[in-house]
This record gives sequence, C-alpha cells and structure tokens, in this order.
Amino acid sequence: MKKGLLTVVSGFSGAGKGTLMKGLLARYDNYALSVSMTTRAMRPGETEGVEYFFVTKEEFEKSIEEGKLIEHAQYVGNYYGTPKDYVFEQLDAGKDVLLEIEIQGALQIKERFPQALLLFVTTKDAQTLVNRLKGRGTEDEETINKRLKRAAEESEGIEEYEYLIVNDDLDTCIEDMHDIIQKAKLKADRNIEFIEKIRKELKDR
Amino acid sequence: MKKGLLTVVSGFSGAGKGTLMKGLLARYDNYALSVSMTTRAMRPGETEGVEYFFVTKEEFEKSIEEGKLIEHAQYVGNYYGTPKDYVFEQLDAGKDVLLEIEIQGALQIKERFPQALLLFVTTKDAQTLVNRLKGRGTEDEETINKRLKRAAEESEGIEEYEYLIVNDDLDTCIEDMHDIIQKAKLKADRNIEFIEKIRKELKDR
Repeated sequence: MKKGLLTVVSGFSGAGKGTLMKGLLARYDNYALSVSMTTRAMRPGETEGVEYFFVTKEEFEKSIEEGKLIEHAQYVGNYYGTPKDYVFEQLDAGKDVLLEIEIQGALQIKERFPQALLLFVTTKDAQTLVNRLKGRGTEDEETINKRLKRAAEESEGIEEYEYLIVNDDLDTCIEDMHDIIQKAKLKADRNIEFIEKIRKELKDR
Repeated sequence: MKKGLLTVVSGFSGAGKGTLMKGLLARYDNYALSVSMTTRAMRPGETEGVEYFFVTKEEFEKSIEEGKLIEHAQYVGNYYGTPKDYVFEQLDAGKDVLLEIEIQGALQIKERFPQALLLFVTTKDAQTLVNRLKGRGTEDEETINKRLKRAAEESEGIEEYEYLIVNDDLDTCIEDMHDIIQKAKLKADRNIEFIEKIRKELKDR
C-alpha cells in the first residue's frame, strides 16, 4: 500500500478553499479531510466535528502541551490546529489527506514534512475577493476588513507554496487541484527511493 | 496570447522518450517539437529535419560560434544542440515546446531559462532498460554497453529534474506527461507576475 500525499490548502478567506475541498471529496474517493481544532466560535450552519472540533482555549493549550497537534497557529485572535493521529492513520491507509490551514501552520508542515504539497487558493483579483467576502453575509464590516488586511499580509507568503490555484470556474478548479495533487506524486524529489534503486541497479551491472 | 512552456525531456536511452513525444504531438495540438542538430550518423528509418538536422562537425561548430544554439553538448562522441530561432518563435506563438536533450544540455537550459520544466523519462527498472535496448536491434553490443554505462552516469543527475516519468504503460504515460506539463503552468514560481499584481491590489485598498 503506497502512502498518501499530505496536501496543505491555504488561501485568502473568501477564495473558496472550503468549497473546493468539498468538491474534491465528493468527486474522488482518494481523499480524506483533516478536521482542525479551533477556539473560534461556531458559525451558523457549522457542525461540531465537521468544519472543526470546537474547543476552549484551555483544551487547546492542553493538546499543544501533550504533542497531539502537528501544527497550530493563531488567526484573528483564535487558535487553530491539526490533530496528529487522524492524519497519520489516513496517510498510512493510502489516502491523500487535505489540510485546510493558514500560512503559519502551512510553514510548520513544510518544515516538518518536506514531502508535503502546499497549495494556495486565490481569486483572480482583489476585487473578486472583496465581493465574495461581502456576499457571504456572515460577518460584519470590521471582520471583513480584518480578513482583507490579513489577506494582504498572507500574500507576502504565496511564494512558499508550490502551486497557485486560481478559483475562477469552480469545476475546472476542482479538476485542476485533483490533477496537481496526483501528478505531484511524480515529482523527482518525492521519489528519491525509486531513483536510488534504479541508480544502484545500473551501477551494479 | 500566453507564451508556451519550454519543456525539456531527458531520460535513459531506450526508455522511450521519442515514442512518448510522438504520442503527445499526435494526441494534443498545443505542442511543438524542437528538432535538434547533431553530428551523429543517421539511423535506418530516420529523416533529415524530422528526428534531427544532420550536420558535419564543422557546420556544428560554426553554429555554436554564431550563437545559434540555446544549448549543446557531446554524447557518445557526437555533438547535439538546439537551434534557437524555432524554439523562441513557437513559445511566442503559445506552443509548449518539447526539447529532447540529454543531461548536459538540460542543465544549460535550466540555468538560462529557470522557468523551463525538466522531465526525466525512465523505465521501471534497469532490466527493462537492457531488454528494450537489445530489442531495438539497431546497435551492436558495444554501443549498447556504452549507453548503459552512460545511463548509470546520467542517473546521478535525476534529482536536477522536476518530474520523473516512469514509462511503463505508454498510454498512461502520455497522459501523465500532458497533465504534468499543463499543471506545471500553475506553479507559484511560474506565476510571479500574477502574485505581485494581486499583492499590490490588496495593499492598495
């Protein structure tokens, strides 16, 4: 059984990360979605254990201390983190695990798991992002402005990601993401074991 | 008109580079094949201007002096090089240009055109390579052994390539190559202009 690929999906708030990942899960059976832990308040329509595991600040800090998270970060005043066990179990079972996390966490993953694939989701321009955030209607003006300010900050780190996913047409974008993730498995630096094997065979002749 | 992607295809002699590229050209209309210049003898079935432009040593060295090649190298005692004009014209016309060259030339391309995509074609193991070289029946034992020795040397450089193309099933392999080339255009480091534009838009709000 070949291990799955750990794929980190970051991107601007409002760029459609969540919808893209739901699309991938619905359309292909090789993905598993990591559910993050957070201290932020539940939004209307969200369910415990689906979008997030919602915990208190004290519970979150206990998980950090006990080494139960593979990454964690703070974003707009709240903690977000990825529970370790589920991710490792799914990768071992051959599933490609999708982590929707922000840039601080993504960089921790890149550092700890250099084989991980980092994708950054963006709209085609800033105005489209503004329109989508306003259209969502779940947040007040102040929160939207915080998110846009954060997007400007996050844009500084885009080059740390391997691929850019421009979410213009949803269908095309889901297929692009799938192809990128599957083809990323063929990257030379993710196949060092194979390269060393054939190199040895050629030398030993 | 978006410029095409310069794609370098290297790989072990006998791994099937030529067949894969013919497959890509037959199946998709976005590719243009760069025809190399060489001083090696024409093989049975080859045509001037199709597999190569066959020239003398003197003609080749004149092209180098006149700056008409974007890369050149020596391999098994012969010169091989890529004429510049055709490649640039095709890229400007939006075609993805395929260059079948060996590792010395590939590294020159990587140095001069960092956006170029480098693919390495291999069989699934060394024995399959030996079998294919012997099955080709166009070369004597000594030349085959030279090629295998060269393959062992080339295997040292595989990590310089971005993707590994394991040519096991031909059809799958052609599709994989196509997907890899098309998706490579979405790599963050090939979209610096886009990244800088949206970053500026977000800051200027």
